[in-house]
Amino acid sequence: MKSKNILYAQSGGVTSVINASAYGLISKALKSEEINKIYAGIYGISGILEGNLLDIKEEPIEKIHALSYTPSSAFGSCRRRLKDDDNEGFNRLFQIFDEYNVGYFFYNGGNDSMDTAHKIDQYAIKIGYDLKVIGIPKTIDNDLYGTDHSPGYGSAAKYLAISMLESSIDTRSMSKDSTKIFIMETMGRHAGWLAASTSLAKLNADFGPHIILLPERIFDEDNFVNKVKYEVEKNGYCTIAVSEGIRYKSGSFVSDMGYTDSFGNRQLGDAGRVVANIILTRLGLKVHVAVPDYLQRSSGHIVSKTDREEAIKVGEVALDLALSGISGFMVTINRVSNEPYQVQYGKVPLFEVANNTKYMPEEFIADDGYGVNDKFIKYAKPLIFGESYPDYKDGIPDYVYFPLNEK
Amino acid sequence: MKSKNILYAQSGGVTSVINASAYGLISKALKSEEINKIYAGIYGISGILEGNLLDIKEEPIEKIHALSYTPSSAFGSCRRRLKDDDNEGFNRLFQIFDEYNVGYFFYNGGNDSMDTAHKIDQYAIKIGYDLKVIGIPKTIDNDLYGTDHSPGYGSAAKYLAISMLESSIDTRSMSKDSTKIFIMETMGRHAGWLAASTSLAKLNADFGPHIILLPERIFDEDNFVNKVKYEVEKNGYCTIAVSEGIRYKSGSFVSDMGYTDSFGNRQLGDAGRVVANIILTRLGLKVHVAVPDYLQRSSGHIVSKTDREEAIKVGEVALDLALSGISGFMVTINRVSNEPYQVQYGKVPLFEVANNTKYMPEEFIADDGYGVNDKFIKYAKPLIFGESYPDYKDGIPDYVYFPLNEK
Repeated sequence: MKSKNILYAQSGGVTSVINASAYGLISKALKSEEINKIYAGIYGISGILEGNLLDIKEEPIEKIHALSYTPSSAFGSCRRRLKDDDNEGFNRLFQIFDEYNVGYFFYNGGNDSMDTAHKIDQYAIKIGYDLKVIGIPKTIDNDLYGTDHSPGYGSAAKYLAISMLESSIDTRSMSKDSTKIFIMETMGRHAGWLAASTSLAKLNADFGPHIILLPERIFDEDNFVNKVKYEVEKNGYCTIAVSEGIRYKSGSFVSDMGYTDSFGNRQLGDAGRVVANIILTRLGLKVHVAVPDYLQRSSGHIVSKTDREEAIKVGEVALDLALSGISGFMVTINRVSNEPYQVQYGKVPLFEVANNTKYMPEEFIADDGYGVNDKFIKYAKPLIFGESYPDYKDGIPDYVYFPLNEK
Repeated sequence: MKSKNILYAQSGGVTSVINASAYGLISKALKSEEINKIYAGIYGISGILEGNLLDIKEEPIEKIHALSYTPSSAFGSCRRRLKDDDNEGFNRLFQIFDEYNVGYFFYNGGNDSMDTAHKIDQYAIKIGYDLKVIGIPKTIDNDLYGTDHSPGYGSAAKYLAISMLESSIDTRSMSKDSTKIFIMETMGRHAGWLAASTSLAKLNADFGPHIILLPERIFDEDNFVNKVKYEVEKNGYCTIAVSEGIRYKSGSFVSDMGYTDSFGNRQLGDAGRVVANIILTRLGLKVHVAVPDYLQRSSGHIVSKTDREEAIKVGEVALDLALSGISGFMVTINRVSNEPYQVQYGKVPLFEVANNTKYMPEEFIADDGYGVNDKFIKYAKPLIFGESYPDYKDGIPDYVYFPLNEK
């Protein structure tokens, strides 16, 4: 029997530990006698459709190890989705699978990527191509259905909590005669998981955040201004986390409030800056605004050890599932105990992940809507536990890079 | 002879290692028989003028050790300056000095703080009060005169270089069908030291920054747009560092370009966002913008080991100078060798520091004005060498906090 090959690819927004999952899968597959070649798809299905595949066994083995601590997407990612009626796309994809003798396809991504993986699994069944398709979860947004949490979230949460702590003690120290308000805008357009994670800054100190603006709550400007005033009077300063996804009662995003430049062009804003200007205009207080943007999802220099280990494990479990003949599922992490924190690994059908979103439970949100409560802390605290650091060279992380055949 | 007391205080914007200098000074003073009490002024001279002093020996000794890795200002800082003709202020200050039997005054800050320290030294001489005044350098801006570099700069530079590296590999990985441009705005209103430091991201990789907008160069929109276009065509994407202090030919800050919100109110902008909107409008490319703001000056979770050790040392040297009877000087770091990197510690008169600014040398700037050259890299590389991490508890840094008698 001619043994089959593996194709692994990454898709969607990156995380600090997505490559740790690649490391888990690849390093285990290298030891398996059932696997012949291991290919990495470059730029997800976008590159695969162009025949852009990397033969992992041609790369030095040290590079595989370095994958375990390299953030972002080492093989390139994409936003491309395959539509149901894209027969040309599916035909081309399965030509590539056939050409490279691919028997196992692993797609490492979020909701949209699981939708694509599901469609590929269905198409294989339809045309009678023997393919095992397994989804590997990844997203800093923590909105994947069927899993207690998603690899990537713990590290982003740790980064944001530490950044909020450090900025809060900065603001506190300057508050006597300078800055009174610090605002940090977080990602998370539809669910408040990331904004909420800044509350973990309070585990070892009590300097903020005093307010968290969650997308789960309507942004009421008057009420918010009163809350800021109250916190400044109480603490002498106020630090605030703002989700990029907050909306007005009308349903429009606060970040879409919009403004025009000096030439009359309508420009994009951001929620943190809009909220800062509201405070500046109505309360006349000095405000600083931070927008970590990509920094929060690529922060390999400080990842959660728990998150990293789980990311490696879901890669290994994905291989086990595929080799046992299972197809059409995503690996899940199931919490079996909180103290001590213990998890087991399971699976959920890809189509369920593709058609659902995991929102933050209402019971996690504080009564006044400006933060989260102890139930959230209890849930999130184990996910940021432990520190994991990359190797350094000349003062800079010694991450690993693969050729992406860039233009 | 009744031994004298020490008063140490922090002033101006904070850094990741200013408390390391406090640690160096205090831990050495605790062993000195010439020193009786050690006071920390709360909120710099702003709190000292209100008699807000902390008796360090009343605090647990473990807290002194934790100062060595706690970022930001542990005792509170201020922006207050003493004007020459503020007789009431000087009188009040020396009443406090007299009341607390202060014989040694250490002011840990930047240019403005050294100006204040100089005036205090002069006033002591004028009224015949026996006071030794020593300045301890600190600023992420690296613009202090008389010293090769300033404690705080190396850690901010390391943070910014790592953040630029991580965001650049993120942008590279998404560039096939999503984001093409990443912009990170840095602090540094008058000198490009911080924006320039992002170039250290290229020590172990070559993914950016492709463009650095320095305040030393006029921002020419057309020329910049052409440069971005060129870089995107060459690399497939382009990452950019923007100093908050860039200006148009007219002399006005790009960040002051200003815009009006939907209610017609004029609002504050920021340079990174303005530049992003220029690219979006003129090239139609997807842009992401990060503004680390306070995160770059309080990032205790990743500091330069070299910077931290030097910060501790300048605190120790400050004590030595004062105890040897010297007054009116700031401690300096003099580089005596670059390979291997070696420094000696010296001193410079406070009035010279107060009246000068250290700009980035023209010879460090790249020919096309969009970055720095190898001369800068040679200068800055040793300053970010080595990693130093804080202790953690529950996944969050276990920093130390002192009561600041907050409102």
